[in-house]
Amino acid sequence: VTWPENIAIIGAGALGGYYGARLIQHEYDVHLHMRSDAAHVATNGLQIESLDGDFTLPPEKVRAYENVETIPKVDLVIVTLKSTANGEFRNLITPLLKDDSAILTLQNGLGNDRQLAELFGARRILAGNAFVCINRITAGHIRHLDHGLIRLGEMSSPATPRALAIAEMLSSSKVPCQAIDNVAAGQWDKLIWNIPFNGLGAMLGLTTDKIIGNPTGLALAKSIMREVISASGLLKYKFPDSVIDQKIKHTETMGAYKTSMQIDRELVRPMEIEAIFGEPLRIAQRADANMPLLEMMYRSLSLLDRKS
Amino acid sequence: VTWPENIAIIGAGALGGYYGARLIQHEYDVHLHMRSDAAHVATNGLQIESLDGDFTLPPEKVRAYENVETIPKVDLVIVTLKSTANGEFRNLITPLLKDDSAILTLQNGLGNDRQLAELFGARRILAGNAFVCINRITAGHIRHLDHGLIRLGEMSSPATPRALAIAEMLSSSKVPCQAIDNVAAGQWDKLIWNIPFNGLGAMLGLTTDKIIGNPTGLALAKSIMREVISASGLLKYKFPDSVIDQKIKHTETMGAYKTSMQIDRELVRPMEIEAIFGEPLRIAQRADANMPLLEMMYRSLSLLDRKS
Repeated sequence: VTWPENIAIIGAGALGGYYGARLIQHEYDVHLHMRSDAAHVATNGLQIESLDGDFTLPPEKVRAYENVETIPKVDLVIVTLKSTANGEFRNLITPLLKDDSAILTLQNGLGNDRQLAELFGARRILAGNAFVCINRITAGHIRHLDHGLIRLGEMSSPATPRALAIAEMLSSSKVPCQAIDNVAAGQWDKLIWNIPFNGLGAMLGLTTDKIIGNPTGLALAKSIMREVISASGLLKYKFPDSVIDQKIKHTETMGAYKTSMQIDRELVRPMEIEAIFGEPLRIAQRADANMPLLEMMYRSLSLLDRKS
Repeated sequence: VTWPENIAIIGAGALGGYYGARLIQHEYDVHLHMRSDAAHVATNGLQIESLDGDFTLPPEKVRAYENVETIPKVDLVIVTLKSTANGEFRNLITPLLKDDSAILTLQNGLGNDRQLAELFGARRILAGNAFVCINRITAGHIRHLDHGLIRLGEMSSPATPRALAIAEMLSSSKVPCQAIDNVAAGQWDKLIWNIPFNGLGAMLGLTTDKIIGNPTGLALAKSIMREVISASGLLKYKFPDSVIDQKIKHTETMGAYKTSMQIDRELVRPMEIEAIFGEPLRIAQRADANMPLLEMMYRSLSLLDRKS
């Protein structure tokens, strides 16, 4: 018996839309809950531009829903909701759950898995990080620009057969995926990139190439990365300093990439400040880590968010 | 004999234009060198709106110059040039100097007096800080919004008779002025305000009221002030913590004030980053002061400056 037999993706925007489209392309049974584009996608299908190959899904292949009440119960709920909408977890996810349904959050930052566990029990929860550059171009049109690796695992144990099954499913759908034993470490690994580039991108209105393209910006990004690595170390997630150059190298291939947070600020939409800055800061402070740069970015972004 | 008998103000923009206009209003012999508005002011005079009383100076009262070569030699040169134009010191000031002429810099930040001393000898140099909110509305139209105190003194000695004479001249021209013995301490005092409010204003595009008007922005501004005070302490300039609340109180009366650096960023003009951030950072680092917030602002602003 194959598990999962069916999947719902909750809050499928650029990221959930792309991964969902890849699963659909590979004949998996997927229901896409979309907050803004459901009607358009139900009528017109999905158009994907991807460095791993462009493709389109005609409307008869895509089941897109504005309302979760009409989605059947599923084996696996994948959450790609913006973390600023986590207050809707209960309403959006409860109708989809069977007794043994699993929930995988691929959301940015920290705290999403904990919030899901508080509502639905830690036993159900898996978490993963998508190292990927994806933008929504317009309704039903998604552009996958660079990278794409997902690392996922159980929230509260080493990888289980179901974690491996999900990794297998994604890997067989042109989505590189690894099951890992320590998702918290994976989350901090992603924060080493997200904190400097989402933060500076949104604060200063700069694409990634503008930040790393001159010595001052590069030094700034690296000093923030160093602070995150040092706090991670206090939390027992050890990263070698070589991670910094690795991530800078990965950033070089992205070109003039606009992080989601920079886009959110430009469009005066809520930014994922708590998940990417607030929650890591609070966790680090509990471990007596001093993070003045993170704290400054957190406060600056909070200030900008309230302005809007 | 009254000293100074005549005065030239170099780089008279909003600040130099206002103080110059006050001196002219009180019958002092003043020559205004203006980088952009000389022709307009020579033809139309100056219009001053001030919380200490509005007034206008007709063109026959104002001697405005685009070129310093036509200004006579003077007893006192007051420098209100933007510090990003300090490379022009030699050309702009040399023609105005007699053997015993004094030079008073009222420019923002640190390093201006040192640069003047390197060119003209420390013996000539006085420095002062203007605690004032002034904007140029348009050519020949200046608005003095709030405050106005100048604290000035000798660069390399306690206050001298000439420092007292300048303070007396300004005080008798509706410009509150104090002669002080330690101008370096005065400069750090002003930086306690300039670093947070110019920095956050330019980085985040926020007027002063938006920064102090909510708890997050207020906490952020205070944490930056605390860092500056702590570095000042290592440099032997001790400020009590009560300075913070005092300066916040002064900021409250300013309303929606746009710092010069925020305006410069909006207009894509060079920002005074080295004087307000770079030079203080380097001086603090030489005294082993750790200033992560200042360093982050310095790098962020440098990055934005290069973008333009």
